[in-house]
Amino acid sequence: MSELIRVRLEPPYLLLIGSETDPIYAKTAMGIVQWCPEKVCGQLRFDPSALDLGVPDLSIEEAIDSGARSLVIGVATVGGLLPDGWLSVLKEAASAGLDIVSGMHNRLNDHAGLAEAARRSGARLIDVRVPPAGLPVGTGKKRTGRRILTVAADCAIGKKYAALALHRDMCAAGMNATFRATGQTGIMIAGEGIPIDAVISDFVSGAAEVLSPDNEPDHWDIIEGQGSLFHPGYAGVSLSLLHGSQPDGFVVCHDPSRTALSGWEHYSIATLQECIEVHLEMGRLTHPGIQCVGVSVNTSKLPESERQACLEEITHQTGLPAVDPLIDGCDAIVEYIRQQVED
Amino acid sequence: MSELIRVRLEPPYLLLIGSETDPIYAKTAMGIVQWCPEKVCGQLRFDPSALDLGVPDLSIEEAIDSGARSLVIGVATVGGLLPDGWLSVLKEAASAGLDIVSGMHNRLNDHAGLAEAARRSGARLIDVRVPPAGLPVGTGKKRTGRRILTVAADCAIGKKYAALALHRDMCAAGMNATFRATGQTGIMIAGEGIPIDAVISDFVSGAAEVLSPDNEPDHWDIIEGQGSLFHPGYAGVSLSLLHGSQPDGFVVCHDPSRTALSGWEHYSIATLQECIEVHLEMGRLTHPGIQCVGVSVNTSKLPESERQACLEEITHQTGLPAVDPLIDGCDAIVEYIRQQVED
Repeated sequence: MSELIRVRLEPPYLLLIGSETDPIYAKTAMGIVQWCPEKVCGQLRFDPSALDLGVPDLSIEEAIDSGARSLVIGVATVGGLLPDGWLSVLKEAASAGLDIVSGMHNRLNDHAGLAEAARRSGARLIDVRVPPAGLPVGTGKKRTGRRILTVAADCAIGKKYAALALHRDMCAAGMNATFRATGQTGIMIAGEGIPIDAVISDFVSGAAEVLSPDNEPDHWDIIEGQGSLFHPGYAGVSLSLLHGSQPDGFVVCHDPSRTALSGWEHYSIATLQECIEVHLEMGRLTHPGIQCVGVSVNTSKLPESERQACLEEITHQTGLPAVDPLIDGCDAIVEYIRQQVED
Repeated sequence: MSELIRVRLEPPYLLLIGSETDPIYAKTAMGIVQWCPEKVCGQLRFDPSALDLGVPDLSIEEAIDSGARSLVIGVATVGGLLPDGWLSVLKEAASAGLDIVSGMHNRLNDHAGLAEAARRSGARLIDVRVPPAGLPVGTGKKRTGRRILTVAADCAIGKKYAALALHRDMCAAGMNATFRATGQTGIMIAGEGIPIDAVISDFVSGAAEVLSPDNEPDHWDIIEGQGSLFHPGYAGVSLSLLHGSQPDGFVVCHDPSRTALSGWEHYSIATLQECIEVHLEMGRLTHPGIQCVGVSVNTSKLPESERQACLEEITHQTGLPAVDPLIDGCDAIVEYIRQQVED
C-alpha cells in the first residue's frame, strides 16, 4: 500500500478488555488473539471477572516493560461510544508512549486531555474507522499480481473469516499471499488496511486499488469483502470494492440457513447461483477473466449428519469446492486456485 | 426532503462571474440562468470584458436593494480553488447579509475572515459539495409516489440536462413533478439537493432515499443521475443512487459518437442495449417493476441529415422513444411514461 495513504499499527498490542464479560462484545479482541497471537503481548482487564483471552494480564507499566507499542481497544460498547471511565486509562497509556488504537464511533482526538497526553509523548491516536486522506478515484487499470476477494449475498456472513482462513492456508501451502483488510477488526489483525465503507463514495474503488497495489506475478492479495451486491443499503460499497480489487477469483460466503437479509428481513436472500452470476457479470468490467473459485459455507446451524451432504450438493450444483472454513479449512479452495487460476 | 438533513438555498441569486471570459468555466452560472432564470436577480462582473449572461450587472449594494439573498459563485476555477482576490468581495457580500454559495473544493468556512463576517451578519456560508450530516443507511423500503432516474454508460453525457428537460416537459404537460438534484450545479438550480458523490459510501443509498421521500401517488421525482454503472471509478456511486432512488423508470442518456469512457479511454463504452439490461437487472433489487422509459440522445456531433435516422434506429432497436432533448424536447418520453408507467 502506498506509504502516503496508509496507517500502520505497531505491535505488540496490549488488548483493552475493561470489565467486559460478554464474548459477543469482545469479538475484536478474540479475533486478534485468534488470527495474530504473535502481535499480542497481553490483556488489560479492570476486573478478574472480565473475559479472559488466555494471554497474560498486564498493567500498562508491565506491558511497556515487555515491549508493548499499542493499546488496542478490543471490545465494542453499546452505541459504539468510548465510556468516560476509560479515559484515565487511555491517558495513562498515551502518556507512557503507547499508541491508542480504537474502532469506536467517537474519535480519540476529540478528547482534549487524551490528545494532549499523546502529543506530549509522541504516541499516536489511531481511529481505524477513519480512512486515510488523499485517496484517488479508481483508474480501472490492470495491476500486476493476483487477487482473491470474498463476497456474499448478505452482510455479516463470514467474509472476513473466509479471507483470513484462505490466506492462512495459502501461506501454509507455500504461496506468497497477503491478507488485505477493509474493516476495523481486519485492520487491527493485519496491522494496516482501509476502512472501505467509511470512504467518500467517489473514492471507494480508488481506495481498493491502493489497498492491493502492483505486486510480483506470483503474489496473491486476499481481500476482505464488505457488504453485498444484493444489499439495498450497501451494494454500492461492494461494487466499488469489486471493481477496484479487480479479483482474478472470488470466494462466495454462504449460509444455507439464511432466507432473508439480516436486519433487512423484507428482502429475501439471493440464491448461490444468482450471487455467483451477478459477481461474474459486474466484475468483468475491470477484470474480464474473473472467476468464482469456491464456496465458503457456514454449516453451524446444520445437524452434523447433514453437513457433508450440504457441501457435496453445493459442489454438485456449482462445480466448485465447498468448505466450512471453521471445520474443513480452505485447502480445497487453495487447490482449486492453483489448478484453475494460477496458469 | 427531511427538514433535518437538507440545505435550502435562498433566491434571488446574484451570480458571481468575476473576470471569467470562457463559457466552459461558467457552466454553472449559465445553467442557472437557463433553468431557473426566476431565481436570478443579476450578475457580478469585475470587468466589462467578462462573460455576459444577459442579466443585469449589479454591485453587491444594488443586488441587496433589489432583494438578493445569496451570492452564488457561478464559475469554476483551474484546480477548483477560490482565488484569493475574491475574498474581499465575498467578505463584503457576507457582511451585507448575503448567503455565500460555493461549489469550490476549498471550504468557505476555512477562510477565517469570511467566516467571521458571516457570523456577524447572520449570513450562511454554504458549500454545496458538502453533504448534510446525519444521513441514514438505506432501508430499501418502498416509498409512495413515482420516480424517474437518468442513467448512462458514461459520465458527463447529459444526465443532468435530460432530467431538467424531462421535468420541464412533465410540468408543462400538467404533471406533478419535482427535479431532485444530486450534483453541485443541479443543487444550485433546484435550490436544494444532496451532492451524492461526496457522501460516505455506507450512506449513499440512504441519501438517495432521503432525497426522494414518500410523496403523493401521482407525484413524480425526476432524479439527476451520477456516474455510470459501467465506470471503473464511479459505478458504486451509481448503484447506490439506483438502489436508493427505486425508480419506476429510467431514461438512458446516450451519445452515439462516444466509443470510449471520457478520460478513461482504456475502457470501451457499453452498448445501449447492455446499458438498459444491466440497469434493469440491478435496479430490480429495490424495485422489481423498474423499466426503461426512453433514450435521451446527444446528436450534436451528427450531420443534420443523419439525426432523424439515428433516433429512429434507436427506437427501432429498443422500442422506446428516442429524443435529443436540446432539439426535440422530451414530450415523446413524457407521453411514453403516461402510457406505460402511470397505470
